[in-house]
Amino acid sequence: MYSFMNDYSEGAHKRILELLASTSLEQNNGYGEDKHTKQAKKYINNLLGPVEADIHLIPGGTQTNLLVISAFLRPHQCVIAADTGHINVHETGAIEATGHKVLAMPCIDGKLTPEVILQALKTHSDEHMVQPKMVYISNTTELGTIYSKAELIQLSKVCRERGLILYLDGARLASALTCKENDLTLSDLADLTDAFYIGGTKNGALLGEALVLTKEELKEDFRFLIKQRGALMAKGFILGIQFEALFEDDLYFTLGRHSNAMAKEIERALQELGVSFLAPPMTNQLFPILPIHLLKELEKEFTFSVQKEIDEKHSAIRFVTSWATTQESVAALCSFLKKTLT
Amino acid sequence: MYSFMNDYSEGAHKRILELLASTSLEQNNGYGEDKHTKQAKKYINNLLGPVEADIHLIPGGTQTNLLVISAFLRPHQCVIAADTGHINVHETGAIEATGHKVLAMPCIDGKLTPEVILQALKTHSDEHMVQPKMVYISNTTELGTIYSKAELIQLSKVCRERGLILYLDGARLASALTCKENDLTLSDLADLTDAFYIGGTKNGALLGEALVLTKEELKEDFRFLIKQRGALMAKGFILGIQFEALFEDDLYFTLGRHSNAMAKEIERALQELGVSFLAPPMTNQLFPILPIHLLKELEKEFTFSVQKEIDEKHSAIRFVTSWATTQESVAALCSFLKKTLT
Amino acid sequence: MYSFMNDYSEGAHKRILELLASTSLEQNNGYGEDKHTKQAKKYINNLLGPVEADIHLIPGGTQTNLLVISAFLRPHQCVIAADTGHINVHETGAIEATGHKVLAMPCIDGKLTPEVILQALKTHSDEHMVQPKMVYISNTTELGTIYSKAELIQLSKVCRERGLILYLDGARLASALTCKENDLTLSDLADLTDAFYIGGTKNGALLGEALVLTKEELKEDFRFLIKQRGALMAKGFILGIQFEALFEDDLYFTLGRHSNAMAKEIERALQELGVSFLAPPMTNQLFPILPIHLLKELEKEFTFSVQKEIDEKHSAIRFVTSWATTQESVAALCSFLKKTLT
Amino acid sequence: MYSFMNDYSEGAHKRILELLASTSLEQNNGYGEDKHTKQAKKYINNLLGPVEADIHLIPGGTQTNLLVISAFLRPHQCVIAADTGHINVHETGAIEATGHKVLAMPCIDGKLTPEVILQALKTHSDEHMVQPKMVYISNTTELGTIYSKAELIQLSKVCRERGLILYLDGARLASALTCKENDLTLSDLADLTDAFYIGGTKNGALLGEALVLTKEELKEDFRFLIKQRGALMAKGFILGIQFEALFEDDLYFTLGRHSNAMAKEIERALQELGVSFLAPPMTNQLFPILPIHLLKELEKEFTFSVQKEIDEKHSAIRFVTSWATTQESVAALCSFLKKTLT
Repeated sequence: MYSFMNDYSEGAHKRILELLASTSLEQNNGYGEDKHTKQAKKYINNLLGPVEADIHLIPGGTQTNLLVISAFLRPHQCVIAADTGHINVHETGAIEATGHKVLAMPCIDGKLTPEVILQALKTHSDEHMVQPKMVYISNTTELGTIYSKAELIQLSKVCRERGLILYLDGARLASALTCKENDLTLSDLADLTDAFYIGGTKNGALLGEALVLTKEELKEDFRFLIKQRGALMAKGFILGIQFEALFEDDLYFTLGRHSNAMAKEIERALQELGVSFLAPPMTNQLFPILPIHLLKELEKEFTFSVQKEIDEKHSAIRFVTSWATTQESVAALCSFLKKTLT
Repeated sequence: MYSFMNDYSEGAHKRILELLASTSLEQNNGYGEDKHTKQAKKYINNLLGPVEADIHLIPGGTQTNLLVISAFLRPHQCVIAADTGHINVHETGAIEATGHKVLAMPCIDGKLTPEVILQALKTHSDEHMVQPKMVYISNTTELGTIYSKAELIQLSKVCRERGLILYLDGARLASALTCKENDLTLSDLADLTDAFYIGGTKNGALLGEALVLTKEELKEDFRFLIKQRGALMAKGFILGIQFEALFEDDLYFTLGRHSNAMAKEIERALQELGVSFLAPPMTNQLFPILPIHLLKELEKEFTFSVQKEIDEKHSAIRFVTSWATTQESVAALCSFLKKTLT
Repeated sequence: MYSFMNDYSEGAHKRILELLASTSLEQNNGYGEDKHTKQAKKYINNLLGPVEADIHLIPGGTQTNLLVISAFLRPHQCVIAADTGHINVHETGAIEATGHKVLAMPCIDGKLTPEVILQALKTHSDEHMVQPKMVYISNTTELGTIYSKAELIQLSKVCRERGLILYLDGARLASALTCKENDLTLSDLADLTDAFYIGGTKNGALLGEALVLTKEELKEDFRFLIKQRGALMAKGFILGIQFEALFEDDLYFTLGRHSNAMAKEIERALQELGVSFLAPPMTNQLFPILPIHLLKELEKEFTFSVQKEIDEKHSAIRFVTSWATTQESVAALCSFLKKTLT
Repeated sequence: MYSFMNDYSEGAHKRILELLASTSLEQNNGYGEDKHTKQAKKYINNLLGPVEADIHLIPGGTQTNLLVISAFLRPHQCVIAADTGHINVHETGAIEATGHKVLAMPCIDGKLTPEVILQALKTHSDEHMVQPKMVYISNTTELGTIYSKAELIQLSKVCRERGLILYLDGARLASALTCKENDLTLSDLADLTDAFYIGGTKNGALLGEALVLTKEELKEDFRFLIKQRGALMAKGFILGIQFEALFEDDLYFTLGRHSNAMAKEIERALQELGVSFLAPPMTNQLFPILPIHLLKELEKEFTFSVQKEIDEKHSAIRFVTSWATTQESVAALCSFLKKTLT
């Protein structure tokens, strides 16, 4: 039975495992002050353009989110997010546990817009209400959509005008930056956001996210905060080695392209069958709307998740492809869909 | 230059790396609900005796500490610790960041005693002061000493009589349980404490600590808390695979014995040279008191840390050995010491 | 210019001031352990029926809310509230600052229903999401409506069946319990909720809310929590004296009836003029929908607040009456409204 | 039986009560935006010298402390305090509940010195430890001693040089500023500290502390924080009226002088009897060391607290006088002491 449940089912790309093995008996400094981490940061920095960024390698995504958000807000400040945002729904109140409200705003296709942000500011005007100070967006979004460069420029503009920190959650950034519709680069992100992270866990690493801080005021004392939240790994070089492998050449993007290509084949099969989608299919997450009676059959051969009931007879489900998804499993799924849906 | 700086300089034992590689293309369930984690827990449970324990694999030690302490205390309650305790000094206020005071008590050789605990209870008697509700101990302690079974029985007794949760930080448990003076087993710990963790990071794993919860009231909803603190790894099976490798046979203890044996050789050399120690040498951390003028020389060939100034002419330094410390490097250190100190 | 802005514009009822003055040179124990507080609790307890309650006098409403909610929730648990609930909108993230998410649910007339609560439970089912553990309601609600006894029985039933703590914010409880439509008593509240508070600040006291804890598990160590949040007044007897004055006879309810009667006259005038309301007028807060062009005129003689834009030409405004509102000012407002709206 | 237990046994000075009564039927704006608060701030500001300060009236001392400390620290930062400091011992972990460690330093006579502060900085040097960022002192201290102007200048200097915020807890500031040994003024405090508060509760008010923020960076958004911690009183004018009464003339200082004078008489009697003190007697708290067998007798006629066991036969006790302490009660105490101790 093949799983399209998520993009963290497999271990790590073999080049990562090989580098971990070949360097294993080296003695490295602890806490991320080692040569591999240094090298990984250099590789990433080369892709960020002229911006002087601080890069920190963090074990996981929820950790990165709670770290960044709690590091930069004063106690009375909140973060604006799409109501579908990961921090609003799927982090068990991790942000609130650090003392801050997530101001969830209704959104289309998982994306915040300048209008929605301005609306949040308008209704939070005095000291009886929390003060919006940060904007959280995800790319790809939780619905598999992406931000265009034009959209990100607009968001960045409104944030800078209104004194809001713009933070981008890049758990699936590889997929976002390598999909057909994308026109953003890492250098654009460094330019347009104040902080973002480059997800490793969902793109071929065992674990690890590379947090990029570009705004000067955000850099101070950040290692204290990493340590305090339990995110400063003793063997930080484990993260360094992995990002070194991902960025010493094009591997990071190659893996993203692969997961998108696998999703595209499934999408094509579904489009041909006239299936509609909960959100525009673009990246490695697809949300086709299927007849409920079919799901029982599908479950026998494939693993996936149900996203949302659409009506009594239809549900939107989620297929996720990854760096490790095989051509064979995609072919099997497409063939199953064609057989069953026609 | 060989480093005796700490026990997390190297990657992972080769059997761990091999298992990670050989299972890498398996598709496993996320968030620790996979077969490797299940198997690892089974192996560990077999060593715990009749106690029904919940086991959770957590990425790191500070995370485990802050998780356990904040999970079980109400807002007005505090945790008693030795003033040398890791949570008091070296976790950047991680416990306080979850809202709880660390009540640091002066201690000898890094060890809490029933008397010290009762003293803390006596001086915290009403609602104008925090309420002690948990006791935190480390084994090995931060000074490399260990608790004997008799001592742990006494601590356990006073905690149970006074309604205190007893939690043991086992970052270096492998070294503690395999040293010459030890008479404790994992089964004793399960019996005598309410929660403890079996450290992997400092005993041959890339990362990972196995938290054992034995007290029934502590088990409820613990996965919510792991997720909230950002400690529920998407690829939880990475931790499962490592503990599977460490516990499928005696590997975990073999590695602990090795690090102790390496330390013992250094200790012997120092004893022969008449060097005295800041705390009794027992496990893989040694704290010899050396003439300060010698340290400059030592630094040229070995890495170590300075623990404490003793007087104008002497400092206590720290040598740490590990699962990966080689016979050659120990021999080199001993020979250097003999040459220089005589 | 008369203010209908809120019900905390005036100081305190003269009987309260007189008792404060006549007892001022007594020496009383600090921190609420004085005879006046004891007497006030006795008076209140007599109205609670057979329930054995713990009563604590707290300086203010936001404090009481954050105290109660943070005292009884574990870190991963959240409180369900109407989206209009005071804790969701108007307490500057006070609840989140204690670490807990407010799960805001869309509601009609400011009131939670069993269906809405069950919906929240249904969509919060696993450890990736916060766990609902408490239900927060207000009576009167933030829209001036009240819960009937039948409604509260239903809410209580669903909470008890599903293990949820039911907490009622009674900032305006005097107005709720003395309005025409009400069929609840303090004894019913003690029976049907786990905790509620009897608001003093908005009903004739200088400050003070009487928190009633009826659920046994909620009582333990509560004074520690009051102290920790800065809510244990050194001169706690100041609160005791005020609640003694309010409850030694019917004064508390007399003041509530007065504020309702004043509102009723304004409501009658508005109804006669055919004005419609944002929410059914019942208690001392009225939300008439008025033509925007009229507001400029109204502002010249009366103070009030704008609640909500209804359409381009109409807004719902808020008039609040209080224990101190005079017949003359109500007559003046009614006469102004009649003159201007016809 | 007369109580020398504390300085918050009585209600309020009659001029405060009279002003509360005479203004009670005024309609005032809520939340401290009223004319009395404005007037009180003006009176206080006139005493602060050229400094432009923001003044906020807060209900209580623990609230003020937790507000100030949590408002200005980032999550990884801590506050240095004397080990006897109120925030370290007697606030039930209120500071830790906001996420910050209190770094308690051993001190003499309850007073911090530049040396002690520099010692704390020296031992907290990297990201594995909390970062000291604020210094908390009390004047009078918890042992009834005071800071001289020279001492405060030195503390201020070291704080400014090292980037530390200097905050002074003035719960008993009236007593400090009016004692014989004092050479500080409110204007000095405004000049030398970054924030301090002028205690009302312990000097004749029903409740209330006037927080003075002089450092520019500390002023922004402070009302948000007051609201969030539940310290923004709906009837803020209650505080305004009281500080108006205290500062419209010399009343605040007159009351402080009275409490010191009462203490001085008791001190004189004790000195004549050759009694020694735990800390130098200066203000309205005295800590005489008395034979334990005498305390039983003393308890029959007077209330006081036991501070510390000195040896098997002696304890230091605490006598506190206040604005309301009568000549008669002091005479009675002195006469009792003379009779019993000779």
